[in-house]
Amino acid sequence: MSTSKQWVYGFGGGESAGDASMKALLGGKGANLAEMAKLGLPVPPGFTLTTEVCTEFYKNNRAYPGELSGQVDAALAALEAKTGKKFGDVANPLLVSVRSGARASMPGMMDTVLNLGLNDQTVEGLAQLSGDKRFAYDSYRRFIQMYSNVVLELEHHMFEEILGSHKDTNDYRTDTELTAEDWIQVVAEYKRAVEKKLGKPFPSDPKEQLWGAIGAVFSSWMNDRAIFYRKHNNIPESWGTAVNVQAMVFGNMGETSATGVAFTRDPSTGEKRFYGEYLINAQGEDVVAGIRTPKPLTKASREAMGEGGLSLEEAMPVVFAELTAHYQKLEAHYRDMQDLEFTVERDRLYMLQTRNGKRTAKAALKIAVDMAREGLITEKEAVQRVDPSALDQLLHPTISPKYHRDLICRGLPASPGAAVGAVVFDPDEAANLATAGKAVILVREETSPEDIHGMHAAKAIVTSRGGMTSHAAVVARGMGRPCVSGAGELRIDMKAGAFKVGGRVVKLGETITVDGSSGEVLFGAADMVQPELTGDFATLMEWADKARRMKVRANAETPEDAATAVKFGAEGIGLCRTEHMFFDAERIAAVREMILAETEKGRVAALDKLFPHQRQDFVDLFEIMGPRPVTIRFLDPPLHEFLPHTEEDCEAVAKATGVDAKALLARARELHEVNPMLGFRGCRLAIVYPEIYDMQARAVFEAACDVAEAKGAAPVPEIMIPFVLAKRELDFLKGRVDAIAAEVFAKRGRKIEYLVGTMIELPRAALLAGEIAQTAEFFSFGTNDLTQTTMGLSRDDSGKFLGTFVERGVLPQDPFVSIDAQGVGELVGLACERGRAARQGLKLGVCGEHGGDPSSVAFFERAGLDYVSCSPYRVPIARLAAAQAALAKG
Amino acid sequence: MSTSKQWVYGFGGGESAGDASMKALLGGKGANLAEMAKLGLPVPPGFTLTTEVCTEFYKNNRAYPGELSGQVDAALAALEAKTGKKFGDVANPLLVSVRSGARASMPGMMDTVLNLGLNDQTVEGLAQLSGDKRFAYDSYRRFIQMYSNVVLELEHHMFEEILGSHKDTNDYRTDTELTAEDWIQVVAEYKRAVEKKLGKPFPSDPKEQLWGAIGAVFSSWMNDRAIFYRKHNNIPESWGTAVNVQAMVFGNMGETSATGVAFTRDPSTGEKRFYGEYLINAQGEDVVAGIRTPKPLTKASREAMGEGGLSLEEAMPVVFAELTAHYQKLEAHYRDMQDLEFTVERDRLYMLQTRNGKRTAKAALKIAVDMAREGLITEKEAVQRVDPSALDQLLHPTISPKYHRDLICRGLPASPGAAVGAVVFDPDEAANLATAGKAVILVREETSPEDIHGMHAAKAIVTSRGGMTSHAAVVARGMGRPCVSGAGELRIDMKAGAFKVGGRVVKLGETITVDGSSGEVLFGAADMVQPELTGDFATLMEWADKARRMKVRANAETPEDAATAVKFGAEGIGLCRTEHMFFDAERIAAVREMILAETEKGRVAALDKLFPHQRQDFVDLFEIMGPRPVTIRFLDPPLHEFLPHTEEDCEAVAKATGVDAKALLARARELHEVNPMLGFRGCRLAIVYPEIYDMQARAVFEAACDVAEAKGAAPVPEIMIPFVLAKRELDFLKGRVDAIAAEVFAKRGRKIEYLVGTMIELPRAALLAGEIAQTAEFFSFGTNDLTQTTMGLSRDDSGKFLGTFVERGVLPQDPFVSIDAQGVGELVGLACERGRAARQGLKLGVCGEHGGDPSSVAFFERAGLDYVSCSPYRVPIARLAAAQAALAKG
Repeated sequence: MSTSKQWVYGFGGGESAGDASMKALLGGKGANLAEMAKLGLPVPPGFTLTTEVCTEFYKNNRAYPGELSGQVDAALAALEAKTGKKFGDVANPLLVSVRSGARASMPGMMDTVLNLGLNDQTVEGLAQLSGDKRFAYDSYRRFIQMYSNVVLELEHHMFEEILGSHKDTNDYRTDTELTAEDWIQVVAEYKRAVEKKLGKPFPSDPKEQLWGAIGAVFSSWMNDRAIFYRKHNNIPESWGTAVNVQAMVFGNMGETSATGVAFTRDPSTGEKRFYGEYLINAQGEDVVAGIRTPKPLTKASREAMGEGGLSLEEAMPVVFAELTAHYQKLEAHYRDMQDLEFTVERDRLYMLQTRNGKRTAKAALKIAVDMAREGLITEKEAVQRVDPSALDQLLHPTISPKYHRDLICRGLPASPGAAVGAVVFDPDEAANLATAGKAVILVREETSPEDIHGMHAAKAIVTSRGGMTSHAAVVARGMGRPCVSGAGELRIDMKAGAFKVGGRVVKLGETITVDGSSGEVLFGAADMVQPELTGDFATLMEWADKARRMKVRANAETPEDAATAVKFGAEGIGLCRTEHMFFDAERIAAVREMILAETEKGRVAALDKLFPHQRQDFVDLFEIMGPRPVTIRFLDPPLHEFLPHTEEDCEAVAKATGVDAKALLARARELHEVNPMLGFRGCRLAIVYPEIYDMQARAVFEAACDVAEAKGAAPVPEIMIPFVLAKRELDFLKGRVDAIAAEVFAKRGRKIEYLVGTMIELPRAALLAGEIAQTAEFFSFGTNDLTQTTMGLSRDDSGKFLGTFVERGVLPQDPFVSIDAQGVGELVGLACERGRAARQGLKLGVCGEHGGDPSSVAFFERAGLDYVSCSPYRVPIARLAAAQAALAKG
Repeated sequence: MSTSKQWVYGFGGGESAGDASMKALLGGKGANLAEMAKLGLPVPPGFTLTTEVCTEFYKNNRAYPGELSGQVDAALAALEAKTGKKFGDVANPLLVSVRSGARASMPGMMDTVLNLGLNDQTVEGLAQLSGDKRFAYDSYRRFIQMYSNVVLELEHHMFEEILGSHKDTNDYRTDTELTAEDWIQVVAEYKRAVEKKLGKPFPSDPKEQLWGAIGAVFSSWMNDRAIFYRKHNNIPESWGTAVNVQAMVFGNMGETSATGVAFTRDPSTGEKRFYGEYLINAQGEDVVAGIRTPKPLTKASREAMGEGGLSLEEAMPVVFAELTAHYQKLEAHYRDMQDLEFTVERDRLYMLQTRNGKRTAKAALKIAVDMAREGLITEKEAVQRVDPSALDQLLHPTISPKYHRDLICRGLPASPGAAVGAVVFDPDEAANLATAGKAVILVREETSPEDIHGMHAAKAIVTSRGGMTSHAAVVARGMGRPCVSGAGELRIDMKAGAFKVGGRVVKLGETITVDGSSGEVLFGAADMVQPELTGDFATLMEWADKARRMKVRANAETPEDAATAVKFGAEGIGLCRTEHMFFDAERIAAVREMILAETEKGRVAALDKLFPHQRQDFVDLFEIMGPRPVTIRFLDPPLHEFLPHTEEDCEAVAKATGVDAKALLARARELHEVNPMLGFRGCRLAIVYPEIYDMQARAVFEAACDVAEAKGAAPVPEIMIPFVLAKRELDFLKGRVDAIAAEVFAKRGRKIEYLVGTMIELPRAALLAGEIAQTAEFFSFGTNDLTQTTMGLSRDDSGKFLGTFVERGVLPQDPFVSIDAQGVGELVGLACERGRAARQGLKLGVCGEHGGDPSSVAFFERAGLDYVSCSPYRVPIARLAAAQAALAKG
């Protein structure tokens, strides 16, 4: 036997054994009921069986603690005393609701049984007390139906069929037409059906009913849906659920009764106005079920909506005044917008629930800023109140909610925002039309690095293949272009110049709208809502910037992206991928010439052609970024990415550029790799062909001198060597970069401060960070590649099974979205520690996709990085996430 | 100024400042000369400039320590006192040799200058003293030639031309015909030529000559050849070289003088007999140069070789007796076979050098075993005396050294051993011919997993493409088949049914010999020498087994490989790759059916067809391995490896098997991966299709029960789950394996002990080893894949640049050959530590290619693994390496 322990906590009647701080023990609902009762609000009294009962229940092979039964009896007695009613008493029966209530809200578990305590005898008592026999039997049949469903696990449709056939027989169309006698018959039929199904009668003993409901709640903690939900929301099984038993109050006891839900502020806009709905003569479930249309709470709302009837304010002014006082008290007490449930039983108001209300991103922002201005919360708290991920909705144009959508097809919401344009299938055509000022949408089977210029030119991208981490998705997110990927039903028919979805044909040039936030492709030009980056948004960002420690940079290579980054508050460029600059039509020929050259001299000649372009690239970036640091990553991808791959493509390129098709194909085959991710790429290229990085280094330093001369202020270049696995690689390449810097500075008579650092994107580099930091002046974690190598997961290929992995709980999340803190994270931590031990003040940053993911940003704050870098459109998200992470660290 | 330090160490005349233990300071040669002098052997006196002089020289921008000059003068004075001669003295000139001498023997550095101290005056003194003017001038011209070459860096051919034209003019055919006058003329001509070339005369001051030679030795430490050699042999630059200055003795002072080299035992067979050669009236270089043919030292040798003339034993019996006493003393002193140099000057014996003699693998083995039996060394020392890598030569058939090789072409020595067979180009044909009892050699452009059956059937494999780690090379080594890979000149002409090398054509069916140890492909059937695995070999292995701690297992899947493994002393199977069993013609159809099936039911039906084969596989293995553990790795490679890839192949397979070609191609495309190494493979397959491993588990347990029933003794299966990255993968799969085991055991009424473990081949698995070990009952390190992921190096692709990387010193060695102890090794260490902390006594092994590499085996011993597993033919190597590693650890 365990020692004596409190398993049951009572509440109501102005007192409570628990309070809001005891969520772990009492569950969210139980703790808030206790808190409300303690605040003196009119809460129907009741008691809570703690989550520890649940834990104990499962620990002991589904047996309750020995003391529980006695404590429940005592709580029941107290409840009877508070209400003046008696459980199972025919004259004055106590009826209760039984609800589950875990620490975190958990759909998938048993929800509610109402009117528990009714049987053939007590129902008569209820009829007498309420003076409404019809109400009493309606309540009874509702109870039988609910209890049978959630406790006895019988299906709803059995009861619906009985009710339906009863209505047919009597030629009723709605439930309201049924009389008390009708409900008595229905109840009898329900009970017969249950007995037939179960081979035993529906339980009539209220105590048996109560223990049945309690058992159902605890058992539902382990049903498949609950397990699935917990897995997906990282809720530990060990938390358990509580059970709340509460005296019933009735919103359906005639025209002086009502039930409703309310938000203390508008959950959609955040506006400071009382907002909600109610129904006269109804129980809570009726509001949700949508059979009757609820009315607004306030007169102002009702008038604004142009509705008839009466608002609660008009129908029950006294109750409304009382409710107003309660909601204000609750919001002030909880210091957040509350989501309330209430019931009016014969003009008497009861508060059934309060909790922090869910809200849109826009509302979250406004409520947080308003409350801080009102002095209800601090600026820091306001910063913590807004989910950074939700900001995404606010940073992109969206489709007007009023617009009628003509859906063509659906794919994955690969990159948020919406855009309108004419259908184009060819990237070159996209680029040409865009140059001519036309808005286009690029529709492709899938995209590759050769399509970058067309993706940039397009307003949005649609692909029929590929997942959330396909090339199209990743690049589109980086560019801030809306993208729908993997629209599987979409078939491109190049010959017909159209795409088809089922029987529907959309032709080249026709206008479509892409909603990258929902994954929808719509026909026609939708009405758009533009994002607002001023007002509350700007205020919250300002507060966030005050709170954060880490800097936020952007991944950008084009002037357009760099300008967007600055607009969104980027404090530098954390990753300029120079290879993206090589795909331009003017340059790719020289790049291919370089790759085909058989001698160093030949390569240098081709690189000389690239040099002026590359220098201009850096001049443009330096001019936009001014005194902010610009991290330039030297050529990274394997060379075959720049070559055509099929025989036909080789011939086409050969024809266009005058090179030999056979030589091109031969070189492409020679460079072909089984695992290009682990191949001849990154600094390995420059170990074998140092002249490539030499050209890039010269372009950086010449550009820096040009801009310094023109502007009088020097840019801040940080040269980043990718894919390093050994210090000696960096020694060799940094030596050459430094030599070229010295040469350029001597020639130009000017010295520019610069750093040479490395990406840490291989486990070996992380492990040998101490050695590498002797040469590297900064580290930037390439967490995409580090995730690929540490976990042995190819980003290009793992889409096929990662879903199954997350679903089956093998991995908690897609590690390309949120960093794998256990594995990849340990390497990041090790590298930080060893790097800083070797070089004091070593600058540490991250430039993988994770730089814009809030939970990853929180990890990087804990790891002590100096900055995160992400795509321009995620910069505000990263700023807010960094602030929250800093505040969480305290 | 540095404080006073001893830079110069004298030796000779029965005393020495140094000894054999001071190799770091005096170099190998200097230390051994000092030691011999100390032993009282007749060493010509001299002195050694230490390696610290060299280090100081380079530290101070090629300047000598200030004290050096004085110490050299003092050492010279002492040398003059010991010899009674004077440097530069016309009447009684001291002549010296100057030699380099690093800690490790280093070809590529300056070797020797003899007769230093001669000039136009001292040569006359030498003539007087020796009574032989011709000898004196011959010595002088040799000195000029050597000094000019190694110190003044003039080319040899200049002097050879002068000598040649002098001989022509006088119609001489050999050098011996030249008279004293001739040499005087030649000397004059030499000196003129030098002066013309350098613009200044040949140095005549002995002191100047001496410092010139010393400077040349120190400078040669940094010449390109020396740097290259050091890099390739992991010799640190910081070691530096010493310089040895030693009084000259002359083996060319007439018929009572001689010079020779000797080995205390036969360096080729290891036989215990004094072995060597000498020349009367010659200097050391003449023995090496091969102008005159040296004679054997002993009478027995001379008679055995059927030679005329006199052996040293016969010609100079007194000297021979003295030499015999010296060599016996030296071998006993050094406790190893010695390589000696000696000179006899006018009947007086001088010992010039002793060092541990180089020997063949066979000799190393015999000498080690013999010496241990003689009590000269311990058994443990014998074990440490044999290079494990060299054993490879002894384990495979080799081509008789007497066989005249008709070379067709050369490739890489990809897998050792030699074999004879008929040329075949098609793997199926190879299999058919082999079944018919014919010996065949498979000649292919490159091989793929589909060729396995043909490779197994062949006696050897030749490929025209691919490196040392290509598929052909890796598989051939695993199978113990000789293999020559990357024979670039070889062109296969399938139409003509032949291969061509240059103009030469070798037809299908013609007999060739493959020498996988040298990389040669020969025409015709060579005479073969079979390996001997008994006698000394068996003895040494027995001693090794006593000394080692780690167990040695083999990687094997076929009965043939398993039998070989047992023959070579494997103590279990460490890796049975079940996928290799799936390529068999009978089975591949069912495998493809499984891959094409769209439902679990369809997959199960196909797997049911595979089941009896798979069970038989395990029955065979268990029968051979008896009570030894058998580690069975469940299916690992991505499924597309089992499918044809091109349209044509799909059509061929479709035709042959009756499946739909389009469906086949579509599935192949669907399964195609950008980075298959990081793709849908290993246990990921079974997370999505658990029925695959279910079938394999059932086959293992049914087979185990079958064998246990038949033999009365249970096999020891260890089931290994590959490519694990998270504990939950293993939880899921181990759960299913255990359930199937329970089911089979219940059905069969028998329980077999088994383990379920995991491969650690991903950095994440290594980092999370603590968690994983809660479920895994053993770890086996898959260091191939762990190297690929940790270093970001694809084994299939990195051949193209790894050579450059090692050459440029970026990596010390190919990390697929010897484990990267710093990076990959740290992860192995971490995983061992964390795994054992979580599960006491967790069994740890390695089954990558590194398991058969001696330096990696040493690492694994330090890491505390329980066993290594390698290909059957490397088992003896691993046994010896493991013994040495255990002994080194002490």
